[in-house]
Amino acid sequence: MSNTPETPLLDQIRRPADLKGLSDAQLEQLTRELRAETISAVSVTGGHLGAGLGVVELTVALHAVFDTPRDKIIWDVGHQCYPHKILTERRDRIRTLRMKDGLSGFTKRSESPYDPFGAAHSSTSISAALGFAVARDLGGDVPEGLGDAIAVIGDGSMSAGMAYEAMNNAGALNKRMIVILNDNEMSIAPPVGAMSSYLSRLYSEAPLHELKAAAKGAVSLLPEPFREGAKRAKEMLKGMAVGGTLFEQLGFSYLGPIDGHDLDQLLPVLRTVKQRATGPILIHVLTKKGKGYGPAEQARDKGHATAKFNVVTGEQKKAPSNAPSYTSVFGDSLVAEAAADEKICAVTAAMPDGTGLNLFAERYPSRCFDVGIAEQHGVTFSAALAAGGMKPFCAMYSTFLQRGYDQVVHDVAIQRLPVRFAIDRAGLVGADGATHAGAFDVAFLANLPGFVVMAAADEAELRHMVATAAAYDDGPIAFRYPRGEGNGVEMPERGTPLEIGKGRIVARGNKVALLSFGTRLAETRKAAETLAAKGITPTIADARFAKPLDRDMILALAADHEALITIEEGAVGGFGSHVAQLLAEEGVFDAGLKFRSMVLPDIFIDQASPADMYETAGMEAEQIAAKVLDVLGIAQIGAQRA
Amino acid sequence: MSNTPETPLLDQIRRPADLKGLSDAQLEQLTRELRAETISAVSVTGGHLGAGLGVVELTVALHAVFDTPRDKIIWDVGHQCYPHKILTERRDRIRTLRMKDGLSGFTKRSESPYDPFGAAHSSTSISAALGFAVARDLGGDVPEGLGDAIAVIGDGSMSAGMAYEAMNNAGALNKRMIVILNDNEMSIAPPVGAMSSYLSRLYSEAPLHELKAAAKGAVSLLPEPFREGAKRAKEMLKGMAVGGTLFEQLGFSYLGPIDGHDLDQLLPVLRTVKQRATGPILIHVLTKKGKGYGPAEQARDKGHATAKFNVVTGEQKKAPSNAPSYTSVFGDSLVAEAAADEKICAVTAAMPDGTGLNLFAERYPSRCFDVGIAEQHGVTFSAALAAGGMKPFCAMYSTFLQRGYDQVVHDVAIQRLPVRFAIDRAGLVGADGATHAGAFDVAFLANLPGFVVMAAADEAELRHMVATAAAYDDGPIAFRYPRGEGNGVEMPERGTPLEIGKGRIVARGNKVALLSFGTRLAETRKAAETLAAKGITPTIADARFAKPLDRDMILALAADHEALITIEEGAVGGFGSHVAQLLAEEGVFDAGLKFRSMVLPDIFIDQASPADMYETAGMEAEQIAAKVLDVLGIAQIGAQRA
Repeated sequence: MSNTPETPLLDQIRRPADLKGLSDAQLEQLTRELRAETISAVSVTGGHLGAGLGVVELTVALHAVFDTPRDKIIWDVGHQCYPHKILTERRDRIRTLRMKDGLSGFTKRSESPYDPFGAAHSSTSISAALGFAVARDLGGDVPEGLGDAIAVIGDGSMSAGMAYEAMNNAGALNKRMIVILNDNEMSIAPPVGAMSSYLSRLYSEAPLHELKAAAKGAVSLLPEPFREGAKRAKEMLKGMAVGGTLFEQLGFSYLGPIDGHDLDQLLPVLRTVKQRATGPILIHVLTKKGKGYGPAEQARDKGHATAKFNVVTGEQKKAPSNAPSYTSVFGDSLVAEAAADEKICAVTAAMPDGTGLNLFAERYPSRCFDVGIAEQHGVTFSAALAAGGMKPFCAMYSTFLQRGYDQVVHDVAIQRLPVRFAIDRAGLVGADGATHAGAFDVAFLANLPGFVVMAAADEAELRHMVATAAAYDDGPIAFRYPRGEGNGVEMPERGTPLEIGKGRIVARGNKVALLSFGTRLAETRKAAETLAAKGITPTIADARFAKPLDRDMILALAADHEALITIEEGAVGGFGSHVAQLLAEEGVFDAGLKFRSMVLPDIFIDQASPADMYETAGMEAEQIAAKVLDVLGIAQIGAQRA
Repeated sequence: MSNTPETPLLDQIRRPADLKGLSDAQLEQLTRELRAETISAVSVTGGHLGAGLGVVELTVALHAVFDTPRDKIIWDVGHQCYPHKILTERRDRIRTLRMKDGLSGFTKRSESPYDPFGAAHSSTSISAALGFAVARDLGGDVPEGLGDAIAVIGDGSMSAGMAYEAMNNAGALNKRMIVILNDNEMSIAPPVGAMSSYLSRLYSEAPLHELKAAAKGAVSLLPEPFREGAKRAKEMLKGMAVGGTLFEQLGFSYLGPIDGHDLDQLLPVLRTVKQRATGPILIHVLTKKGKGYGPAEQARDKGHATAKFNVVTGEQKKAPSNAPSYTSVFGDSLVAEAAADEKICAVTAAMPDGTGLNLFAERYPSRCFDVGIAEQHGVTFSAALAAGGMKPFCAMYSTFLQRGYDQVVHDVAIQRLPVRFAIDRAGLVGADGATHAGAFDVAFLANLPGFVVMAAADEAELRHMVATAAAYDDGPIAFRYPRGEGNGVEMPERGTPLEIGKGRIVARGNKVALLSFGTRLAETRKAAETLAAKGITPTIADARFAKPLDRDMILALAADHEALITIEEGAVGGFGSHVAQLLAEEGVFDAGLKFRSMVLPDIFIDQASPADMYETAGMEAEQIAAKVLDVLGIAQIGAQRA
């Protein structure tokens, strides 16, 4: 492939152990080749680019100094792991990143022993490193052995409470472990919160180019266990003039800040730490997201995530879009509602762009709150905004809302506060895989007393649901919608509030009723077309609400049809289970009803194209049609795709 | 009641506004009367005593200085609010605390406008106070108005990540708000973690009796906005010699530490803050849990929670116990398993006594980890212990496990790591009410791929399930059990691992099968006795597993009976929903089956006796029997209790 860069040294590296024989100068060369290979690979696959480019030197230094996989490197979030994957026996598959049957875009235990603890959600790495450190000291037994535990965590991830919980625990347990704070002043969006400004202050007094000189005289300031090792590294260490950090107050030794793109600093510091560490140590490393690739460095998001691109120009090859994304429809709709109601405000947890709230923030900056990667706080903060007479929309991905579940129960539902949950990325999500799937939200919300739970069937429905949530003030209300583009349906100028707990009949037929909750409605309609060819005309209904259920509609569907099939992009325990509970309690099953509930299967579905994932899930039109035929006892040949 | 103390001044106080006319000396007298009244009330009702006694002076000072309910006092956890309730128009009902139809043992919005934000789980107060502060500044509209927002949070609660998330956000938003750190060096158990030692260091250099003198000269050290006000308060403020705290690094102004039992310190500091605060302020207040009541001060848990007691002697009136508690059976059983397997270790989140892990910690201190109020970290830490070859038991109450839900999904389930979840307080919990109920765990765990989910039918079953979890190493496994005592069944010396996914037939009958999951089995048996009188002999089965289901047993029960009724102490979406899904997919409903799923009703059930709560939930024996008769179409008269 002409795209493939010249990488003579990298070509000789089969595994991290091969780095042990290299000189520091060769390691330097290796970083250049590794960076080029990373850029090349992502240009082919798309994916997270900026984060990996920011840690190329750190990746090389860690593998050169430590003994992986015995030593455990735990990459927080894991989306910066592409260079790590290239060095750890996965280079041959690096151009399958995020593809079906290819490499995951995150670290993953089942993929490699060099990934001791997978990730994708942020801020888990310190907890994980502490667990490995404790297991090691207790005599835990794993095939690769248990050596050092090293968490590499970004400054954005440090806004999450669980990182603090882990440091609080680690500082007290005082086990040897290493936390590398990869401070690039970016999470996905620019970081927010007091911790972020605090980190900036840690080195703001002494910019990098001055620190280097200052460090020469700083050795005497080093904590005792490091002094001797640091003498040898004295050219490299810097910034120790800033003492008494927050991390030290939590029981960590603090080293840094050091330049994370300078092997002459990284290698000696890591070697010293490896040789001398006793308790928990935090190494503060400064890096630049997107480092070494112009188009990424210059991008507003520092090349956070990219489509396939041209390496020379940086131009991304995005598929043309046919319809607005659900995310942008939510953002637009909320702006429209907020124009009419100054009590509407919005809360996001470090996802202003991902949730579409960037549109809202531009228009109503004083009413938009990015709380950082802090879903627990974000949910309770929203609850109090509601208690204070505001109308908060709390916009989170389904998978991240799991982080705030107790707060949803305890602060929102029990108090019946009208927080509006805008749940993006509900259902399967494609290339981000199982860790980002939003499979459980309906199950974990719809059994909360007093909650209203909706799912949008298309982007116009989403607009109506935003209006519904804005108008509804009697308790918590949630609406879910998937990743990706809408169906291209005609959009109303403004949403109209829906009647709470009322579904709609989309098509009237007989024998079988297909009751869809959410965007599988389109596939359900397609399934009906297939079935028409067999002389079957199903009734199609859009439930709109999983709670409260449209009892009248559902009981009528059951009474008027031989079979009733629910369809939803969620796990068992959600919409279909609530329908089953209703039918059971009403005695509908007593006399017989061909009831089926199509839900996501009981597996975590790995990354693939959305279409592939839906097929794996059994939720494509042909599979819905096949289900109908099966339930009605009609023979079918070749109804399932191969 | 002879028990009632003399409270001449308190008797004149109808509402907090009445405090405005009192002199500081009268306020001092009021604290003595309020303390006596609190002790008296709790001696009658039982409940949380120590925490309330620790904040008597703070409660009086806050209500004397601030204008509640316009100003919002948010008591973290809320179990220290009894003195607050006495002062805020609820004294007439204070001897109904924690009783059915009485006052909640926590703060509660629906109970009083003086409780602007309810609580029971810890560490939510800073998020809530920030929400109120922001709502105020955005023009939020509530009947009582929006003034100052004041969070009162214990040092134990500061170990939770969400407190940090909230401070991080508050420090950046820079709204006027007040956090009172009520530092009593106790949560429920002695606090753990680096933050706790940090707080101790903040004043360890200068003990209280010395600080008072030192404070006289400390005014010049005060931050500028406080200097003038502080001049007037200079006799009172102390401890400012400790500068540059962690809280200041997060953007808060820090005041303290001050003596929380000395109105001469509290009143002027609060007055100064009220007059002059601009941004977020943290006031560090030192108190003693159980203050002013000898038996509480001397108790190991400082009178954290108590049964009814004799005020003079402190002797508690506990009902005689007939059987060991589930909690202690878990603790004993785990000790037994750990004796045979040195890889077994245990993790608790600030609940060593409540989960029975105190027994384990005594025996195996190096294998027991109390991570603090930090469920998110605790779950991921457990996951990494498992990844490191250990066999962790993660013991949490059902309601608190909600705090670690995302970590259960992302770090445990997706990685299929063998973490053993011991889920205490599953189901209804009596006097602690809705906030502590464990209603949702089966629903939110049983749809996670690869999870094993069990519920113990009695204490002997629990012992077997501990053994099952110890022996099972193929992925995550959870077992739930309720609060309270077992049934007094014969206990095996040691547990025997159960076959995964196999239930058991308890009694063979006909016509109707009762399939119980968990401890409602005993009531189900009682229901069978009632039914026997009507000539009905139900089959009774104990499912043991919600996941994997015992498909063979369940399908056989369906095939062999006219009706199948599931019974569980959990919300819809759990065991019964999984059974319904199985029956639907297997076509069992096609030809008709009288299927019902008895679950907790769709309401949050307020505090009451367990028996009352079960009746509200419709889960008493007579109600189960009535359900059977109803399903079978047999007329019944007076089957329901009035």
